[in-house]
Amino acid sequence: MNFLYILDLIGTAAFAASGAWAGIRRDMDLFGVLVLGMVTATGGGTLRDMLLGDFPPFCLKNEAYLFISIAVSLAVFFLHRRLGFLQHPLLYFDAIGLGTFVVIGTGKALEYQMGFIGAVCMGIITATAGGVVRDVLSNQVPLILRKEVYASACLAGGALMVLLHHTPLPPALVATVAALTVIALRLLAIRHNWSLPRAQT
Amino acid sequence: MNFLYILDLIGTAAFAASGAWAGIRRDMDLFGVLVLGMVTATGGGTLRDMLLGDFPPFCLKNEAYLFISIAVSLAVFFLHRRLGFLQHPLLYFDAIGLGTFVVIGTGKALEYQMGFIGAVCMGIITATAGGVVRDVLSNQVPLILRKEVYASACLAGGALMVLLHHTPLPPALVATVAALTVIALRLLAIRHNWSLPRAQT
Amino acid sequence: MNFLYILDLIGTAAFAASGAWAGIRRDMDLFGVLVLGMVTATGGGTLRDMLLGDFPPFCLKNEAYLFISIAVSLAVFFLHRRLGFLQHPLLYFDAIGLGTFVVIGTGKALEYQMGFIGAVCMGIITATAGGVVRDVLSNQVPLILRKEVYASACLAGGALMVLLHHTPLPPALVATVAALTVIALRLLAIRHNWSLPRAQT
Repeated sequence: MNFLYILDLIGTAAFAASGAWAGIRRDMDLFGVLVLGMVTATGGGTLRDMLLGDFPPFCLKNEAYLFISIAVSLAVFFLHRRLGFLQHPLLYFDAIGLGTFVVIGTGKALEYQMGFIGAVCMGIITATAGGVVRDVLSNQVPLILRKEVYASACLAGGALMVLLHHTPLPPALVATVAALTVIALRLLAIRHNWSLPRAQT
Repeated sequence: MNFLYILDLIGTAAFAASGAWAGIRRDMDLFGVLVLGMVTATGGGTLRDMLLGDFPPFCLKNEAYLFISIAVSLAVFFLHRRLGFLQHPLLYFDAIGLGTFVVIGTGKALEYQMGFIGAVCMGIITATAGGVVRDVLSNQVPLILRKEVYASACLAGGALMVLLHHTPLPPALVATVAALTVIALRLLAIRHNWSLPRAQT
Repeated sequence: MNFLYILDLIGTAAFAASGAWAGIRRDMDLFGVLVLGMVTATGGGTLRDMLLGDFPPFCLKNEAYLFISIAVSLAVFFLHRRLGFLQHPLLYFDAIGLGTFVVIGTGKALEYQMGFIGAVCMGIITATAGGVVRDVLSNQVPLILRKEVYASACLAGGALMVLLHHTPLPPALVATVAALTVIALRLLAIRHNWSLPRAQT
């Protein structure tokens, strides 16, 4: 039970909570809230494994991820009015999950000999595809396509990781630097309300 | 040509009809109606096989499923005004399909050594993911996330099947009991208009 | 670097441009426009490879496809007001891409021993699934399900290719005839504003 695994489970719980809350806001029933929590937490890593050809995906190999997603979604469903105080701290846990998922996804793609673009894409997909599916199931244009420096933080961290991967730096240091880059960019973006440019129309 | 296979084809036809009807209601053209019929009927089993790593998916191994989906969708497209009398009986065939798909999906996941949560999820996905894709393509929040005891009937039947799988009961009996549970819950839910709770907001 | 590969890259660029333009019209930010360009250009072939069990998918094996998609999407994002004159010619490049993608997808499915329906479906999926994902991410009912002879041109060309595949004609001739059929039908449909029938409701 190493440190990265603990961060991974914290990120999974944070993503499940954000998915379950989205389901409640969209007036879904208990089953819908459960599905949104599970999909948000495990959808990105599942799509990554399906693209890399690693079957069954991580969450079917180790059911801890699904178990945590279900437990967190149930807690949010039944206690969400008492859990309001968690909404703000959740942003920080979500950022931790974002950085962890990028590092895990990019690292796995490098193990599978993906090229530069492919490895960075796998990191971004691991961290964001669950949220995209959550938004598609909620019948909304995915948030990350419209605003906020969210996926871009993943892009920066993933690209940094692939570049440093080809240096003699120890892998654990590379992963830590990449994850902290994602987390720092994400927290700065929240604090300063950063957003990407849109095309002038 | 065993009994389960016949039920599977009946369920496929019922799901294709419901998908094609949804396409007509959404004012789609002939091609759109065909796609919705095929996706509703074969999408769940296809996603299950893609997650389990069984390639190509069942409907590309045995084209009978695609053939039936196309034939039914064409019939609904051209004759839907004369087929109105089928709308009510269709609910019963749909329930038969639901029970059959859950048993097939859960059983296949158990063969692939999935754990408890994974096996139940594969049963639910087999039975409901086609309808979810149908609703996403129709630009609607998937019905099963919002109301009706539909996926929950699958959950109950799948969980029962995994539990009984670890008893000395003969597999055919386990499958029959699980399928009948799904069908009975679904029909009772239709009759009594059951629905799951929503979070109090 | 053969002729089909050059057509494939031209089609990729045309599809990426149409995806990026859709992102701009939907008021997405830079990241969203990039994702829509990449998904539209490579989504169909990726889904085909995932269904056939060929991992990793083509665009992760050869990053030229992703590189072109990114370059074209960036160009559209930053220069779209100066590129207005390309909108009309783009329809022709898009038609070339359509024919090429159908032939590549159907041909690959035949190599993988798919049956008639499966091979035709793989051709249609290769050519159209990227656009379907683009529309779903834009929160719209996919265009090809509603109007225009677009997927039907793919269906006709793919079916012709599978039929001719079983004759002694040389494969290069079969592929050329099938691709030209798709392109001709698509251009005629644009010129004469053809559309498929809808169900009378």
